[in-house]
Amino acid sequence: MRDFLPADKARRERVLAVIRSRYRVHGFDEIETPVLEDYDRLHAGIGGDNEKLAFNVLKRGLDADAVRAAADDQARLSDLGLRYDLTVPLARFYATHRAELPSVFRSIQIAPVWRAERPQKGRYRQFVQCDIDVIGDASARAEAELIAATLDTLDALGLEGAMVRINDRRALDAMLDVFGFAPPERPGVLITIDKLDKIGADGVEAELRERGATASAVDAFAAFLRRPQTLEYRPYGEGQIRKALPAGVPDEVIAHLVGIGEAMAAARPVDPIPGVPLVFDPFLVRGMGYYTGTIFELAHPSVSYSLGGGGRYDGMIGRFLGQDVPAVGFSIGFERIVDLLGDAAQADTPAIVLVHDRDVPVAELLAHKAALVAAGSRVRLEQRPKNLKALLERAAADGYTAFAAVAAGVNPAALEVRPLD
Amino acid sequence: MRDFLPADKARRERVLAVIRSRYRVHGFDEIETPVLEDYDRLHAGIGGDNEKLAFNVLKRGLDADAVRAAADDQARLSDLGLRYDLTVPLARFYATHRAELPSVFRSIQIAPVWRAERPQKGRYRQFVQCDIDVIGDASARAEAELIAATLDTLDALGLEGAMVRINDRRALDAMLDVFGFAPPERPGVLITIDKLDKIGADGVEAELRERGATASAVDAFAAFLRRPQTLEYRPYGEGQIRKALPAGVPDEVIAHLVGIGEAMAAARPVDPIPGVPLVFDPFLVRGMGYYTGTIFELAHPSVSYSLGGGGRYDGMIGRFLGQDVPAVGFSIGFERIVDLLGDAAQADTPAIVLVHDRDVPVAELLAHKAALVAAGSRVRLEQRPKNLKALLERAAADGYTAFAAVAAGVNPAALEVRPLD
Repeated sequence: MRDFLPADKARRERVLAVIRSRYRVHGFDEIETPVLEDYDRLHAGIGGDNEKLAFNVLKRGLDADAVRAAADDQARLSDLGLRYDLTVPLARFYATHRAELPSVFRSIQIAPVWRAERPQKGRYRQFVQCDIDVIGDASARAEAELIAATLDTLDALGLEGAMVRINDRRALDAMLDVFGFAPPERPGVLITIDKLDKIGADGVEAELRERGATASAVDAFAAFLRRPQTLEYRPYGEGQIRKALPAGVPDEVIAHLVGIGEAMAAARPVDPIPGVPLVFDPFLVRGMGYYTGTIFELAHPSVSYSLGGGGRYDGMIGRFLGQDVPAVGFSIGFERIVDLLGDAAQADTPAIVLVHDRDVPVAELLAHKAALVAAGSRVRLEQRPKNLKALLERAAADGYTAFAAVAAGVNPAALEVRPLD
Repeated sequence: MRDFLPADKARRERVLAVIRSRYRVHGFDEIETPVLEDYDRLHAGIGGDNEKLAFNVLKRGLDADAVRAAADDQARLSDLGLRYDLTVPLARFYATHRAELPSVFRSIQIAPVWRAERPQKGRYRQFVQCDIDVIGDASARAEAELIAATLDTLDALGLEGAMVRINDRRALDAMLDVFGFAPPERPGVLITIDKLDKIGADGVEAELRERGATASAVDAFAAFLRRPQTLEYRPYGEGQIRKALPAGVPDEVIAHLVGIGEAMAAARPVDPIPGVPLVFDPFLVRGMGYYTGTIFELAHPSVSYSLGGGGRYDGMIGRFLGQDVPAVGFSIGFERIVDLLGDAAQADTPAIVLVHDRDVPVAELLAHKAALVAAGSRVRLEQRPKNLKALLERAAADGYTAFAAVAAGVNPAALEVRPLD
């Protein structure tokens, strides 16, 4: 967990304001849920591996006997926990408030989540997630709106040229079926395929054999993986998608993927990269077990890692509502994007440091400050130190752009403001 | 704990944006600390009664024996807890990062805190606090900057006419000393005086006698309380402050209070209420035990309850740093202010609902949306329902101001947008 000092915090808030405003323009509406959810809901088997990383809150009012009685079943020590993602709370929120929401509900959630990760570089125990979700729309319109809003947001942040890698869990399932992997071995096979970027085709083949997956299926899949044409997925369209898949993937799955591409072409008429900003990737897996259809990942040419991702999870709302409702979400990696942007986009109001002598009466200082604030500036008062240079350098690092020296008895209108440089 | 639906969340974010921006203009810088702090720090006796309301997080990796061993000392079951205020984390933050901060550090913290309150109307277990603090300035400049920034923020929210009731813990101490209350009985006496607004002078006198406070002291205090001139505290200035206090309050305390008034007069040259927006109240107490000097409360003519408050806590930073540093903070009651503002200040970008027939291709829909978004509108797509009127009413409630009906094959440029009313 981290403290954020003023420069970091200001940068984070600037990025959040852009994200919030662009998502909103695309017709998404922000909601907020409490950071604490019921223990049972957080541990209902929906959150996958993240459930094990939940911080659980000690139940209040337990006496010593109750603690002793719970020693062998620690779940009884806790009734609440900190959310480890924003998807489980969203499903709970939607089930609770459905009657008050539009029939197609487009939500924004920008909020911290907590995971009890082991400390390691780039992994934090508290971090911000930025999710948009469309609930109640089974059509490709939902995916296209999510992807268009996300790419527009990246453009607004100065990260033009982002692309979305896309696949469908049903295409993956059909592929594994075509090659002859038995249903029980498929989850393990998917975990291995998910490593293709890292370990390559040879690594995937070796690991599938190590797993003891059906040998004939591994043979067929390894041959498919090494076909030369799978290296070139663009342009995005029905022809490419069919070429990248083995025969046997249902037409409706392909039609859904094609529909997303057509909508994206319409939504991005002046896309910086000519053509649709989508890449069909038949080997994209995504870790979470709850995905049921389209899955996608956000890529940017400046980095090798993903900047976000998401997918369809048509089954999850039903767990809370008792009735299936289609749902699809896209989460951008806020922490990664903030790191990537660095100090770009420092635009701000004019900011003036007033350096005053020790003997200037407080009332005069406040009059100077009030006059400059009323004129639209951001103002910081500083008593003149021995080392003025160091003070001005710090102020410049904090985003201040000008300074003025204040002596006693000076009329605010006569104050001489000079640029900091 | 509460869910916030889109209209509520949008209202909260609008208010937060104003608060954040006005505080910033006054030279305060936002920081952020993790919501989880060490258990020991949260329970170090600094947080007063709030410590008892902390949510504590179950330590991870305890085995059954460790749980049994901790049954009689549940503090051992927990190593982290959710913060119950923003002041304890700020003191910890300052002690950690002092070398990286300006010599006078003006912080903004806008963040949720958690208290395990019993459910009751208007009390929430998760709520947002908005604090500004000045660390490292013992002069009246600090109080004046806090009060000026707070009143400016309320003005910007449309809550002009706010006032600050002000007192000093040292004046209270001197007063109790003058009347002859013994030091051990003073904390209880203050708790009773704090109820003056609610139970009146008779109630306070009766409760002090019930407490068994020194009888001669109660006699003298009760007579003082009933002096007619204590009912009129304005105009704010040295004469009034002296008149409102018994003889014997140290001159330096009065000079500090007078200095704040002079600075505020300079900081608010065009105050909507003529004169200084301060009321000296010799019976203002404020609950928290950590206050050491000035204390204040924010009042607004439209409501009988306080909209915020704060004070000096010069001793607290020393608890973490091992060296005393002057500190003073002002917290505004965000939840109360949001409730008070209601739906005021709905200003927003133009917002258009596109109602489309079922047969309009997704690509055409996305093209319409992209064109309107590019032109600066917020856009929501809705499939035409049986009851169009209900849909448009809901959209208007969500802040949408216009709509257009979309049929298949219409050129985006030819779309007819009509106002919603």
